[in-house]
Amino acid sequence: MKIKCLYASTEKSSDALYLSGISIPDDFLVLVIGRRRIAVVSQLEYSRVKRHSRFSEVYEMSALKSKLASSSQLQKRAIGIPEIIASFFRSTKATSLLIPYSFPSGLLFEVQSLKLPIEIQKEPFIAERALKTEDEVNYIKASNNAISYGFRAAKSALASAKIKNKRMYLDGSVLTSEYLRNLIDKAVFERGAVAQSTIVACGNQACDPHQIGYGPLKPNELIIVDIFPRSRKSHYFGDMTRTFLKGSANDAQKAIVQSVQKAQKNALSKIKDRVKASRVHSAVIASFEGDGFYTGRDESTDSYYGFIHSTGHGVGLDIHEAPSLSKSGNSLKKGHVITVEPGLYYPNIGACRIEDVVLVTDTGFEKLSSFPYQWQIQ
Amino acid sequence: MKIKCLYASTEKSSDALYLSGISIPDDFLVLVIGRRRIAVVSQLEYSRVKRHSRFSEVYEMSALKSKLASSSQLQKRAIGIPEIIASFFRSTKATSLLIPYSFPSGLLFEVQSLKLPIEIQKEPFIAERALKTEDEVNYIKASNNAISYGFRAAKSALASAKIKNKRMYLDGSVLTSEYLRNLIDKAVFERGAVAQSTIVACGNQACDPHQIGYGPLKPNELIIVDIFPRSRKSHYFGDMTRTFLKGSANDAQKAIVQSVQKAQKNALSKIKDRVKASRVHSAVIASFEGDGFYTGRDESTDSYYGFIHSTGHGVGLDIHEAPSLSKSGNSLKKGHVITVEPGLYYPNIGACRIEDVVLVTDTGFEKLSSFPYQWQIQ
Repeated sequence: MKIKCLYASTEKSSDALYLSGISIPDDFLVLVIGRRRIAVVSQLEYSRVKRHSRFSEVYEMSALKSKLASSSQLQKRAIGIPEIIASFFRSTKATSLLIPYSFPSGLLFEVQSLKLPIEIQKEPFIAERALKTEDEVNYIKASNNAISYGFRAAKSALASAKIKNKRMYLDGSVLTSEYLRNLIDKAVFERGAVAQSTIVACGNQACDPHQIGYGPLKPNELIIVDIFPRSRKSHYFGDMTRTFLKGSANDAQKAIVQSVQKAQKNALSKIKDRVKASRVHSAVIASFEGDGFYTGRDESTDSYYGFIHSTGHGVGLDIHEAPSLSKSGNSLKKGHVITVEPGLYYPNIGACRIEDVVLVTDTGFEKLSSFPYQWQIQ
Repeated sequence: MKIKCLYASTEKSSDALYLSGISIPDDFLVLVIGRRRIAVVSQLEYSRVKRHSRFSEVYEMSALKSKLASSSQLQKRAIGIPEIIASFFRSTKATSLLIPYSFPSGLLFEVQSLKLPIEIQKEPFIAERALKTEDEVNYIKASNNAISYGFRAAKSALASAKIKNKRMYLDGSVLTSEYLRNLIDKAVFERGAVAQSTIVACGNQACDPHQIGYGPLKPNELIIVDIFPRSRKSHYFGDMTRTFLKGSANDAQKAIVQSVQKAQKNALSKIKDRVKASRVHSAVIASFEGDGFYTGRDESTDSYYGFIHSTGHGVGLDIHEAPSLSKSGNSLKKGHVITVEPGLYYPNIGACRIEDVVLVTDTGFEKLSSFPYQWQIQ
């Protein structure tokens, strides 16, 4: 039998949070032994974790040390996390200790010195996290609902803004990415979720998918708004993107937006239980290429253009988690919750991304996000 | 020469954020070689990091791989992060690779296979983080200022609440920890900072310092309110605690609060450049014991009482960072920014903690947090 081992706080590790069900702010030890879900925590946390967490067994560190000291030749003060791991390992006759990629090296060194056979478990570490329960689906839906209030705030600000000299003005001030982000994040916060790094990126800025956007927003340019907050209560993420344009769109911009809308529909039409995620991704590429939108690299500016990222990803306690909708994506399964977010990026024209979240079902999908796709704002 | 090596996102690692100065959401490689501060990032991040970060050298991963492939017998696709680390290591004739405790084990395994001499650097990994610049001091002050609006919201709700049948009512509803936390977090958010796990814990709940509090708040009981938000802009934390009581306090409660106030003053009076942090901590213990408040463990309930935590900690990009004001605390230095947070915890009486943040100076300290200490609310 192989034992899985984690050492992290629930803030650092969503695996720890998933197994715990409650926040544990200090690093603690988790062991998964068959169906046993074991936590070893400090005295400070013991009674709270014992009472409120999902672990099937909770131990207090100091008590475990004493017990181990009395049953071995070890001094209590020579016993630490590694010795406790070793004792569980030996008592269950495990053959291997599986740790995640992110397991702390400092602790690994100590465990290695006890000569336990250690293996890195490839991601996902807790594979069942990808299959969402009804509660989890509702948490993600609620976070997406908070996002819709963010979009509402953004749209209403863009609608109220006045265009003058290649700028937009709201209540007499220049409308910037920062200002709009702030409005969005406030609206989302009021619905119980914390948005970080909300993208409000305009024109060429949006052609870099990691650029969150800064400075004055420009009329007649595509503006990507990508909001991915985490619920303060459930800790589940939502993730949605819409692309807006204030003023009038040119033909190139219209073609991009229409092609992305079409690509998203084509992707969605492929989604159901047992379909390969890579097929969904290929459908997006084929859809774009059918419209004449190719992907490539501009050697002179050393930048990529076209469809330059994957089609989507799982979403849950992490903003990016299994499964991946990419070239190497495996089979989708009923219960997966995934984003579907095709996008096109062409410097000097602009960028568009449209992102929704769906639950994979037997026969197709259920949409867990909802906001209109109307993008041109007068 | 020893090389320091990090592999993390700026979200996971405040060391990475400190060196970078900007958010980098995906894991990337950092090498500190003497005065060189090197980042190796993906093509997606390259131009943004090159332009906006504090790194003295920024490399694009794929370009580095090509260069390394052309100058060695390695195939480009056989080159990954470990080979890039090794190439910097060899070209600088380093003697040892220092990694933090939290360095990912998955990557460590790969680096170990290249036979580089690796050492865990004890925390703090980037020691200069403890010494704050003027900008950093101002960021922390700003976060503490946001907190003061949280306290204001809490006090005003408690002042407006009506006492009836061992409950408090606000606008006709029972006033709970959750409700007050929400009010506080909103007020803090409006001042640009995100508070997570704000503690609003009443009566015996507050005797467990990790309990954030739940359910109806009770009149005539001590209520610990601990707010520690992170600025959305600067990413620096603030950290302050006040203890309130709505209704009338009994003598035991008054004695506890007075003793904590006194202990904080005694601690502060010891703080200056070159004083041992352990001496500040001892001053708190002595102050409490002088008032008859001892620390111990109740065997029957398996819980600790009295002064059950350290006197304080550094605060910055992490909520807890060096230095520590505890039994084993080292010398304080001019430029340290620390919390001073004595507390007393007595089940069946209640708990009080008062926490402020100060900058250590040559001759004493400068307070970076400000909110009145008045605690009884009619």
